[in-house]
Amino acid sequence: MYLERINQPNDVKELLAEELPLLADEIREFLIDRISETGGHLASNLGVVELSIALHRCMDFPSDTLVWDVGHQSYTHKILTGRREAFGTLRSYGGLSGFPKRAESDCDSFDTGHSSTSISAGVGFAFARNLRGGDERIASVIGDGSLTGGLAFEALNNCASLKQNFVIVLNDNEMSISKNVGGLAVGLSKMRTSDWYTGLKEGVHQSLEKIPVYGKKIDQTIHRTKRGIKQFVIPGMLFEELGLLYLGPVDGHNISVMERIFEEAFNYPGPVLVHVLTQKGKGYPPAERHPARFHGTGPFDREKGVPLAHRRATYTDVFSTVLKKAGERDDKVVAITAAMMDGTGLKRFARQFPERFVDVGMAEEHAATFAAALALSGLKPVVCVYSSFLQRAFDEIMHDVCMQKLPVVFAIDRAGLVGADGETHQGIFDLSYLSMMPHMTIMAPKNKWELSDMVKFALTYEAGPVAIRYPKSEAYEGLREYRARIIYGKVEEIWPEGDVLLLALGSMVSVAESVREALEAEGRSAALVNARFAKPLDEDFLRAAMKRYRGMITMEENVMTGGFGEQVQAFLSEEGYEGKVLRIAFSDAFVPHGDAAVLRKACGMDPDSICTKIRDCFW
Amino acid sequence: MYLERINQPNDVKELLAEELPLLADEIREFLIDRISETGGHLASNLGVVELSIALHRCMDFPSDTLVWDVGHQSYTHKILTGRREAFGTLRSYGGLSGFPKRAESDCDSFDTGHSSTSISAGVGFAFARNLRGGDERIASVIGDGSLTGGLAFEALNNCASLKQNFVIVLNDNEMSISKNVGGLAVGLSKMRTSDWYTGLKEGVHQSLEKIPVYGKKIDQTIHRTKRGIKQFVIPGMLFEELGLLYLGPVDGHNISVMERIFEEAFNYPGPVLVHVLTQKGKGYPPAERHPARFHGTGPFDREKGVPLAHRRATYTDVFSTVLKKAGERDDKVVAITAAMMDGTGLKRFARQFPERFVDVGMAEEHAATFAAALALSGLKPVVCVYSSFLQRAFDEIMHDVCMQKLPVVFAIDRAGLVGADGETHQGIFDLSYLSMMPHMTIMAPKNKWELSDMVKFALTYEAGPVAIRYPKSEAYEGLREYRARIIYGKVEEIWPEGDVLLLALGSMVSVAESVREALEAEGRSAALVNARFAKPLDEDFLRAAMKRYRGMITMEENVMTGGFGEQVQAFLSEEGYEGKVLRIAFSDAFVPHGDAAVLRKACGMDPDSICTKIRDCFW
Repeated sequence: MYLERINQPNDVKELLAEELPLLADEIREFLIDRISETGGHLASNLGVVELSIALHRCMDFPSDTLVWDVGHQSYTHKILTGRREAFGTLRSYGGLSGFPKRAESDCDSFDTGHSSTSISAGVGFAFARNLRGGDERIASVIGDGSLTGGLAFEALNNCASLKQNFVIVLNDNEMSISKNVGGLAVGLSKMRTSDWYTGLKEGVHQSLEKIPVYGKKIDQTIHRTKRGIKQFVIPGMLFEELGLLYLGPVDGHNISVMERIFEEAFNYPGPVLVHVLTQKGKGYPPAERHPARFHGTGPFDREKGVPLAHRRATYTDVFSTVLKKAGERDDKVVAITAAMMDGTGLKRFARQFPERFVDVGMAEEHAATFAAALALSGLKPVVCVYSSFLQRAFDEIMHDVCMQKLPVVFAIDRAGLVGADGETHQGIFDLSYLSMMPHMTIMAPKNKWELSDMVKFALTYEAGPVAIRYPKSEAYEGLREYRARIIYGKVEEIWPEGDVLLLALGSMVSVAESVREALEAEGRSAALVNARFAKPLDEDFLRAAMKRYRGMITMEENVMTGGFGEQVQAFLSEEGYEGKVLRIAFSDAFVPHGDAAVLRKACGMDPDSICTKIRDCFW
Repeated sequence: MYLERINQPNDVKELLAEELPLLADEIREFLIDRISETGGHLASNLGVVELSIALHRCMDFPSDTLVWDVGHQSYTHKILTGRREAFGTLRSYGGLSGFPKRAESDCDSFDTGHSSTSISAGVGFAFARNLRGGDERIASVIGDGSLTGGLAFEALNNCASLKQNFVIVLNDNEMSISKNVGGLAVGLSKMRTSDWYTGLKEGVHQSLEKIPVYGKKIDQTIHRTKRGIKQFVIPGMLFEELGLLYLGPVDGHNISVMERIFEEAFNYPGPVLVHVLTQKGKGYPPAERHPARFHGTGPFDREKGVPLAHRRATYTDVFSTVLKKAGERDDKVVAITAAMMDGTGLKRFARQFPERFVDVGMAEEHAATFAAALALSGLKPVVCVYSSFLQRAFDEIMHDVCMQKLPVVFAIDRAGLVGADGETHQGIFDLSYLSMMPHMTIMAPKNKWELSDMVKFALTYEAGPVAIRYPKSEAYEGLREYRARIIYGKVEEIWPEGDVLLLALGSMVSVAESVREALEAEGRSAALVNARFAKPLDEDFLRAAMKRYRGMITMEENVMTGGFGEQVQAFLSEEGYEGKVLRIAFSDAFVPHGDAAVLRKACGMDPDSICTKIRDCFW
């Protein structure tokens, strides 16, 4: 057992080179074993076992700096830095995070979660080191997917200014790379990674600089070969144009080859990109076959490769069906995703209407501005994205969509707590960042039928953008009998009689239902209204409610600041409401990882805690 | 006078080719003449006179689609589409906008203002056209500066999927391009723009595809020439790697050459980038010499090339001095700008501390994440950016800076109304989008001395990020005697006695001073407190104020939703305050262009309007 010899940072350096593949096998077994029990990111982590080992052989922790883009592939890094035994608590409240966390280990340099940040951070660390005159090694590991995010490009563009070493490891797990290119790659890699070659290239460069004066003939020859050259060095040319040295591609499952190339890379006096080819899910056939299914997974049967829990229909599933049907009814509907076709439920739409489906890559900003132009062209774009990732497009939603008042539909999945992925993924800010945008309309459904109704409503609304936010959870199937027609900006009254009013938005309607019943059982009477719209506020209803209820409780799965309740409270105060208003929302803090139900309790957002707050406030 | 013959779209096509340079001269004279009177963007517009004419010769308006990136270079386009006579009203309230506006003309396809959106929009228009089976021409014009924004890259990356024509015009006005490269460029351009060459290249491409099997020798030859090739075709290779056809570079002041190349470009069955070299300020020597000074300018003396108005010290000037001094005192201070060295006042810092000054390009996102890594490395990064542009970095501020609680200082210039640039540039959202971020601190100074104190305070604050927002205006020099030491999260009481309380933030303190005096003259007594911090709220003060004042008026230069006043009002309501609270802030709408004082009146944010509101509410 080599794994048992890895108990603290740098232990991996004590192993012999020939022992490393065996260690990799053990880590892989360990990961499959643990993740099948706890759930977690499997495919991405299986892909970088050797890559992580090779980096750890070339770096010292914690003195060196390693930044993992997104960070869902950092499990081996965690194992190699003494956190193996914590894996039983993976992604549970108070346990090991599924992402790098500085608070967890000083071997984690930068907290990540969203994509495309690692090069920016790495350039920053390198800049600071150079200024200080330090000599530690700095590397960022970024996937080919993350590289499509604009932030990564901005950082690449800024790299060239670094006159000292900085290593970017491009973890390329694109399956479509053909064997041919891979075969050529080995030869290129050998030649390009030796000190000899780097030196030679500089020499060649200098002598070639004089060529232009020789005139047209060389010029033409070179042109003729240009396309040919591209066949050899894709995508190295792209990076070299940006001022980086390109090394690779190299086999990302061959530790000794990677060790050699990383060592070369760390010795280069400037920014260098090492192109590493890996396979997602490597070593676990079900994950190799279905990397998307094993991207983020719950506990699964490791023999059969199927989830343990029986899965009921989620809001994503409901949305998937509704949008496909909308696409059948109306050929102007276009679905847009930012690298989340599976996660947002667009697979069926994409299969049926490939010409009306666009995956823009991890490029939420472009998704929004692109959609604005589609709307201007008379199409009905639906941008399908997770709540926390949509933050990337804040300016584009404001500046390109809202300012032009364009009918773009934002289908915002994972709005509210997502649980195990933690603070970077909790969708608890969208009500605030969307409410402040003029011309925006925001809706949230109480159950599966209302999601369907809202999507249909949004697609007919032509006066501006509409955001529909719904949680990562099973679709609520209660309150089926309440299905009043959606009227723009109007609430839905569910249980109008009561002493105080529960004004609940989206996922909180079902919570409010429990709260109402619990209060009733105690002889306390509360009305329940489904807010439906977070923006605009139903001012007519609120004015009427001021007369009817002696107190109001707003309920939303969002932070308090700038959220639904704050606006309701400010409005009621302005209108001179004399009753009390209680806001149920997340306080001004990030919410860590853990089971969503546990987090809800910890944040005082479960029915019991809410009942207590209401009792304290109104009785 | 050729200009008089240009009265509606497409009139420019009636002119003879040899008349066009004369038209260009007249347009240039017209622009210098008008802008010297009204102010506006001069240098960028003088640079694209010929480029605009050439595009208009190849396109039909309004049926074709032309998107201007940023849009501050669209004046010639406006002249060519029948808006010449409106130029007397340029950038004044209700007059001609300095940016493309669909509401102004159906020849403006997409409203712009922020950078790097044009390719996204163009790809969207092309996608929609292709789906519809249309054949109109679509072009986006983007500057080399805008191309450094991540959004532009995301869109370029998405271009390759278009199987039909879409033209990107790269308006390259980088002065550092040497004459040598420019000379070579003409030859390249000739060859690369003929149909013959495009066809040839395809043929070459196909035959070269077989080369790899020939093995090592060609491989090596090609490698040796690779760097040499880069000398010839920079930056074409970059674009071709991304799947675009690259044409150019071409002289952006030669209309006939451009007409030919644009015609070629529009006939290519895929995305194509035309690289055009232009000179900012072309034809007006003062602007050629100082393009930054004549980027956005007020009225100026066209003979002398100097501003007409005597310019008093602005907040930017104050910040400039303070930051330079901070840099002298502390060698950990690093200043970061996103292509706005002049605008944010960093020129002196940059000159004195070049090793601690970083211009990342138009890359606000990278600026924020890069700064996060600097802060983690023990440096004191100050990100200097305009309020409305900082929106681009919303996710990075939240996810990389706030979530890690890092001491990054955001120096937010142009916060509040900016006036003539209009809705895309008004800085009236930052209080809302920053307040909702956990761990963020937000300050705003009442006068020049307080800005200085706040910058110093922020640089000593180590517990998290601090944003300081200040307006585009002369620095207020009143209230000099009020300079209480800054205490974290605490207000500064200026005039504590009164019946009601004016709680004003930043630039609104001086407005509140006028309001207080006006009310006093009427026998109405109001206290005045400088809020200083928009976040955190000074809850102790507010609790005490509840007992002291029968009403409170919050004042901020920000939208109401999610802003300072909304949070104060919600807090007071929650605490059971029985007095009235009046919020003075912008309503939920975008604010158009015009003189800032005129806009303030129109929005009810001038002292008179505010006095009226207060009287109506409290007396």
